[in-house]
Amino acid sequence: MIHAYAAQAPGGKLTPFEYDPGPLGPDEVELQVSHCGVCHSDLSMLDDEWRQSAYPLVPGHEVIGLVRARGERVEHLSLGQTVGLGWMSASCMTCPQCMAGDHNLCQRSEATIVRRHGGFADRVRCSATWALPLPEGLDAADAGPLFCGGSTVFNPFLELDIKPTDHVGVVGIGGLGHLALQFANKWGCEVTAFTSSEDKRDEAIALGAHHVVGSRDVGALKARAGTFDVILSTVNVSLDWPSYVLALRPRGRLHSVGAVDAPIAIPAFRLIGGQKSLSGSPVGSPETVRKMLEFCARHGIAARTEHFPMRRVNDAMERLRSGEARYRVVLDAEG
Amino acid sequence: MIHAYAAQAPGGKLTPFEYDPGPLGPDEVELQVSHCGVCHSDLSMLDDEWRQSAYPLVPGHEVIGLVRARGERVEHLSLGQTVGLGWMSASCMTCPQCMAGDHNLCQRSEATIVRRHGGFADRVRCSATWALPLPEGLDAADAGPLFCGGSTVFNPFLELDIKPTDHVGVVGIGGLGHLALQFANKWGCEVTAFTSSEDKRDEAIALGAHHVVGSRDVGALKARAGTFDVILSTVNVSLDWPSYVLALRPRGRLHSVGAVDAPIAIPAFRLIGGQKSLSGSPVGSPETVRKMLEFCARHGIAARTEHFPMRRVNDAMERLRSGEARYRVVLDAEG
Repeated sequence: MIHAYAAQAPGGKLTPFEYDPGPLGPDEVELQVSHCGVCHSDLSMLDDEWRQSAYPLVPGHEVIGLVRARGERVEHLSLGQTVGLGWMSASCMTCPQCMAGDHNLCQRSEATIVRRHGGFADRVRCSATWALPLPEGLDAADAGPLFCGGSTVFNPFLELDIKPTDHVGVVGIGGLGHLALQFANKWGCEVTAFTSSEDKRDEAIALGAHHVVGSRDVGALKARAGTFDVILSTVNVSLDWPSYVLALRPRGRLHSVGAVDAPIAIPAFRLIGGQKSLSGSPVGSPETVRKMLEFCARHGIAARTEHFPMRRVNDAMERLRSGEARYRVVLDAEG
Repeated sequence: MIHAYAAQAPGGKLTPFEYDPGPLGPDEVELQVSHCGVCHSDLSMLDDEWRQSAYPLVPGHEVIGLVRARGERVEHLSLGQTVGLGWMSASCMTCPQCMAGDHNLCQRSEATIVRRHGGFADRVRCSATWALPLPEGLDAADAGPLFCGGSTVFNPFLELDIKPTDHVGVVGIGGLGHLALQFANKWGCEVTAFTSSEDKRDEAIALGAHHVVGSRDVGALKARAGTFDVILSTVNVSLDWPSYVLALRPRGRLHSVGAVDAPIAIPAFRLIGGQKSLSGSPVGSPETVRKMLEFCARHGIAARTEHFPMRRVNDAMERLRSGEARYRVVLDAEG
């Protein structure tokens, strides 16, 4: 039996919950959870915001764990090896996207906490494809957030072909944004942080920003018209998007990884004249995650975390919900 | 003196108008107009829709003409050579965009009919940069529309790096769309035309479409969910954009070259999951226009046109305004 924490209904408290995972699939691994980051998507799923939650719901999709069992076809991972597991837990492996290395764009992919049980538990399973070995030099205790939050903001650097000569803006300095600032800085870019929290200014600089601008300061945005190659938005609130488009250079790209509810509305002429675009992307592919981990190890990039023991999972969720966490909450396995 | 047709006020009739163009600039050429296409932007400028018109306003920015005078620094064009001139008539030549070959993205560029006089005239001037020689094999009488309409829909094939293996949708089969269908077909793509005019179905097929779908037929769009690599919209009306995004494959791109007034509103989650984008672009750079002309000559691509003598310029404008033109109206010089 796997011992987990589950909500029994939307918005419910997490309480101990046991389930029998059944026989291990031939391409699966079972991980002993050592740490699990807490992501906004865990809250969204807990609250059934996206109307795809099933209860009992076991959140947790930023898992660091040890491989404790391998399916019969799994040979590239060793028992006892430390791996990470993020938002995705399986891909079909046969569709055009999987065949092209875009397992993260597989339309039949499985998500770790959608109609299956996640990492707020002593054990969790996934397809071996999505269990990525942690390289030397990364601290397992703080690596969990890389597997969803980190992957989400690293992916655009490869997918948008961001150049080290580019000027990059990062909107929202939270769980995702504080990693994006580190990535952008080590990527060699000129980095501007956009934040609504004046008190994050110094921390944004420490994380790698060269400039800090108020994310709702339309005047400051206008003063930077035509200066950004890429603006990466991590927020899930509506901002003055046309002004952000105006802040882009010709060929500039406004890229959102934040699941903002309200449609993003841009007048076509704002895109046409300067050949600009609005785009989005999910977490990275397994190969992108591998590159990210190597990049983090080389450059000392890590999430800034607050740790809670697993039994205080509800406190951890509330801490995240408060918006006060700096910058990612991580649960640690006990005993 | 240059003899032109000008409107004296927004929406006014075009009447004979003379102006003295002054001394020819060192980098300019003066063209004797032989043909001039009529573009929707001529109507928009005539009507001052974009609040940038100055009167007297001489429309016309799809010019074919003979070089009759060259500025002192112009050596690469010959007197008597046939060239074309489109929406742009000069670029600054020193900004980062010009220096990178993106003269079409120059933010200090000059447009042929914005606060200067266009091609509904016996002569027109432009920077030699934007006077592109017509290659062998293109019929001068029908080549004018390539220089604005054609350039606008050819540019995305290079800029979006469209592959011959891609499935491409073209929304709106008019002056721009009927050229886009020909480009997409000769580019090697699978081509779908989206049109609100059922009676254009056969013509769309003849122009190169493999499939034709109603542009407002949301059911038909949904049946094609996840099937297009690129959807190129040429319309200036609002459509059900989120359904068009749904029709894109993962990594798919909805690209608008139509100056639709109402903002295009897309929910972020529609972009994120499949790594999709919304983008826009203007006319191509001079080098892109050169490649387009060569491509047209090689593949026999040409605008389908209706010709009017220059003196019937008001009839020509009304014909365009009627939406009945198939597919581009061209004015021919007389005498």
